[in-house]
Amino acid sequence: MTIGEDLTAGSRGLLLTDLYQLNMMQAYLDSGYTGSATFEFFVRKLPKTRNFLIAAGLEPLIGFLEGARFAPEELAWLRETGQFRKEFVDYLSELRFDGDIDAVPEGTVVFGNEPILRVTAPLPLAQLIETRLINLMQISCLVASKAARMVLAAPADTRLVDFGLRRAHGGEAGLLAARAAYLAGFAATATVPAARLWGIPILGTMAHAYIEAHVDELAAFRSFARSRPDQTVMLIDTYDTAEGARNVVRLAPELAAEGIGIKGVRIDSGDLESEARRVRAILDAGGLTDTGIFVSGGLDEWELDRLRRNGAPITGFGVGTALTTSEDAPALDCAYKLQEYDGRLCRKLSAGKATWPGRKQVWRSYDDAGTMAGDVLGGADESHAGEPLLQPVLRAGERVDGIPDIEAVRAHTARQLAALPAERRGLSPAAGSFPVTVSESLQATADALATEIAERNRRAAERLS
Amino acid sequence: MTIGEDLTAGSRGLLLTDLYQLNMMQAYLDSGYTGSATFEFFVRKLPKTRNFLIAAGLEPLIGFLEGARFAPEELAWLRETGQFRKEFVDYLSELRFDGDIDAVPEGTVVFGNEPILRVTAPLPLAQLIETRLINLMQISCLVASKAARMVLAAPADTRLVDFGLRRAHGGEAGLLAARAAYLAGFAATATVPAARLWGIPILGTMAHAYIEAHVDELAAFRSFARSRPDQTVMLIDTYDTAEGARNVVRLAPELAAEGIGIKGVRIDSGDLESEARRVRAILDAGGLTDTGIFVSGGLDEWELDRLRRNGAPITGFGVGTALTTSEDAPALDCAYKLQEYDGRLCRKLSAGKATWPGRKQVWRSYDDAGTMAGDVLGGADESHAGEPLLQPVLRAGERVDGIPDIEAVRAHTARQLAALPAERRGLSPAAGSFPVTVSESLQATADALATEIAERNRRAAERLS
Repeated sequence: MTIGEDLTAGSRGLLLTDLYQLNMMQAYLDSGYTGSATFEFFVRKLPKTRNFLIAAGLEPLIGFLEGARFAPEELAWLRETGQFRKEFVDYLSELRFDGDIDAVPEGTVVFGNEPILRVTAPLPLAQLIETRLINLMQISCLVASKAARMVLAAPADTRLVDFGLRRAHGGEAGLLAARAAYLAGFAATATVPAARLWGIPILGTMAHAYIEAHVDELAAFRSFARSRPDQTVMLIDTYDTAEGARNVVRLAPELAAEGIGIKGVRIDSGDLESEARRVRAILDAGGLTDTGIFVSGGLDEWELDRLRRNGAPITGFGVGTALTTSEDAPALDCAYKLQEYDGRLCRKLSAGKATWPGRKQVWRSYDDAGTMAGDVLGGADESHAGEPLLQPVLRAGERVDGIPDIEAVRAHTARQLAALPAERRGLSPAAGSFPVTVSESLQATADALATEIAERNRRAAERLS
Repeated sequence: MTIGEDLTAGSRGLLLTDLYQLNMMQAYLDSGYTGSATFEFFVRKLPKTRNFLIAAGLEPLIGFLEGARFAPEELAWLRETGQFRKEFVDYLSELRFDGDIDAVPEGTVVFGNEPILRVTAPLPLAQLIETRLINLMQISCLVASKAARMVLAAPADTRLVDFGLRRAHGGEAGLLAARAAYLAGFAATATVPAARLWGIPILGTMAHAYIEAHVDELAAFRSFARSRPDQTVMLIDTYDTAEGARNVVRLAPELAAEGIGIKGVRIDSGDLESEARRVRAILDAGGLTDTGIFVSGGLDEWELDRLRRNGAPITGFGVGTALTTSEDAPALDCAYKLQEYDGRLCRKLSAGKATWPGRKQVWRSYDDAGTMAGDVLGGADESHAGEPLLQPVLRAGERVDGIPDIEAVRAHTARQLAALPAERRGLSPAAGSFPVTVSESLQATADALATEIAERNRRAAERLS
C-alpha cells in the first residue's frame, strides 16, 4: 500500500480516533459501563464574526456511521501493539453503529448551546465516535455558515461557485466544503467528485498555465474554444486584462463563423470592480453584450458586499480560500458531551465549560411575518410552544423515513435564511444575541444536579478518608 | 457504497481535481500540447503572523503520486457524463505519474517566492495534479509552520502533544496535521492512525465523559487506573479542579498498594497558570511530587510563551484547534505555476501575481555562527554561493535514493530552527523580510520575457486584424 492510499484508508476505519477513546473503552468494558449513554453535539459560543450558524454535515456523518467498522488491517495493527487485551480487540472487530441519532435538519439556523445532534448508544460506542463526529460536523457547519454569509452578501441574479478545493485542508475537507457550500446556496463547484457523489453542478474555466503554454493569448483562446465550445469562459488577465478583453473581441467573429459563442471572460487579479467595468466597456463596444464577466481571486463576503453595493457589472464569482477554510473563523467552539448515562443525568461543571444535563430539545418561534423570534432550550420531555428542531434520523442504526436529499436541504436553507431576523443578516456583528431561553425546568434540574454531584463526591471522599 | 466510503474513495483517485483541469487536458491533447512542462509550487507572501515557513507535505504528496490513477468507477462516471470524448477517457485510464520532482527537503525553512517543489512532466499530466498537489502541500506547510512556532515558544523540557484531530477539517487534515506537528518537533499525537502510518508516538488520557459516567470522581479515577495502570493521567477539572487534585492524593495510597503510580493529572479549563500552581501545591503536600501536570484547552503559541515566561509548573501541553487549523493563518497565498513549456520560458504578468520564469533554485548562505544569512533565487542552471535547497526526489516517477524518513526530517527541522536568525524566532512579526535576492540573470531573463510576450501578443493581434 502506498502512503497515498494509506492516507485515505486511514480516514475510512474507526481507528481514526483519539487514543483516549480506546483507553476509555477498554476501561468501560472492564468495569461494566456498557449501558445506554446520550451525548449531544453543540457549539458553545458563536465566533465573533458569525451572527448565526447553519447546521450541516449530517448526511456525511450518517454515511460514515453506516459504514463504520475497524478494518482488518487496523485490528491487526492494534493486536500487534500489545497495548490492548485480545478480548477488547475482538469486541472492536464486531463493533457496528446500532444506536439512535436525533438531529437538527441540515440547513437549519442554529445558535450557541443548542444541541445540533444527539447520539444515544452503548457508552463505549457513543464514546468512540466522538472524535470523528466532531471532525466531520465542524467543517461542514463552518463552510455552510460561511457560504450563507456570502449568499446573503452577493448581488442578486449572480452565481457563486466554489473554487476552494486546492486551499481546503486535505481532500475530504474539499469534498465536504463543496457539499456545504451548495446546500447553503452556492450554484456550483469546480470540485469534480462533488458531481459524482452528490449530483452537485460543476463548473470550470481555464488556468493561466493554459494561456502561458501557448505562444500567444489568441492561440490559447482559439484552441480552447474549439476543444470545449460549450465552456468558453476565457481567462483574460494573464498578461494584460484590457488587452485580453480586446483579444476576445478580435477572436469573436472567427469563432462565430464556426458556430462558437464566447460565454464569458474571467478576471482573477487587480481591483475586480474597476477591471470589470473596463472589460464590460470593451466587450460591449465589440458587440459582445451577452458575454458575462466572471471574477475570482481573494473573494470573501465583504468583497462580495462591496461589489454588490457598487453595482459592479459582474455575473459570477469563483470563491475559494475564504470559503473552504472559513478563513476568518476556521474553528468552532464545539463539543460532544455526555448528558445522561444509564438513566442518570450527567453534567460537567468546569469553569466556562459547564453543560446543560439530559436529553434536550430546542423549540423555535416565529413572528407573524415568519421571522425567527426566539428559541427555548429545554429537556426533550418538556412541552413548549414553537417548532421542535431536533428530529429522529437513525433508530437502532437504521435511517428513519423522510431524510431530505441535498436539493431539499438547499431549499430548506434558503427558507431559513429568508426567516433570519434583519439584524442577523448583515455581515457586521449584530448587537446582542438571538434570544435563546433556558426553560425553568432545565435550569432547576441543572442546579439540583450540581448540588447532588458535589454531595456524591463529598461522600465518596469521606468514605476513603 | 455508503457515502462515508464515498468520501474517502473520493479522495483516493485522480478525479479529485478541479473541472478546469480536465477541460484543459482535453484541449491540450486536441492541439498536441503534450510536451514537457515545468511547474513550481511556492508561497507568494508569508502570512503577516509568520516570520518563516517550514516546508512539509512532500512524503504524502509522493505517496499520492505513486498511487495516482483514475479509479474504474471514476472513469465509468466520466464516460456516463458525456462531457468528454471516449479517446480522452481512455487516455485518462492509462495515466500514471512518470514525471520528475525536485523539492526542498521537508522540515526546511522557506520564505516567500521560493520554489518549494518543482514538477516536470508532460503538460496534461503536470496540469492535472495541480489541485491535489496544493491541497496536500498547503495544510502540511501550514501545520508544520504553526507547530514550529509552538515548539520555539514552549518551556524547555516539556512535551507538546497534538490533540487536534477533532477540530481538523476532515480526517485527512487530521492525519496530515499529526505528521506535520511531529516533524516540526511535537513529542506525540493523540491521533491513533498516525502511529500505524508513520510510527509517531501516540498519547491519550481520559475525557470528562469518563468521569461523568461514574457515580463520583473517585470511582472514575479508580476504575481507570486499574484498567490502564500504565496510562494514569487523571482529568481533574470536571467538577472542581482543586478537589480533583485532592481526590488524586486521597486515592494514591490505595493505588500504590496495588502497584499503580499516578503519572499525571490533566487540567482542561480555567486559567492554566494559576490552576497549575494550585494543583502542584496540593500534589506536593500529598507527597505526589513526581506526578506531572498536563494542561490543555485553547492553547496556542502565545499562551505557551506566557506560561513559559511565568514559569508555570507544567510538564506537558495538549494542543488542538490552534495547531491543526493554523487558526490565525488557515491558508497560504500559495500557487503552482507554469514556468517552462517545451523548452520555452513562461511567465504570468497579472497585477500582484507576476511569476519568475523558468526552472529555479534557491541558494542559502549562513554566517560564521551557523545562522541563516540570506538566500539567492536564480535560474536552476546558474551558480551561486551557498547551499542549493531543491534536491531531486522523483525521476521518471521513481524515487531517488536518500529521501529521509520522518525521524531524519524531525532532526533536520530542529537544526533548521536552531539556525533561524534571532529576529525570526519570536512570535511577533519581525521587522523587514529575510533577505532573498533575485539574481541579476533571472531579473534580466524575466524583463526580456515580459517584452517578448507583449511583442508576441501584439503580432498575433495584428495578424488577426
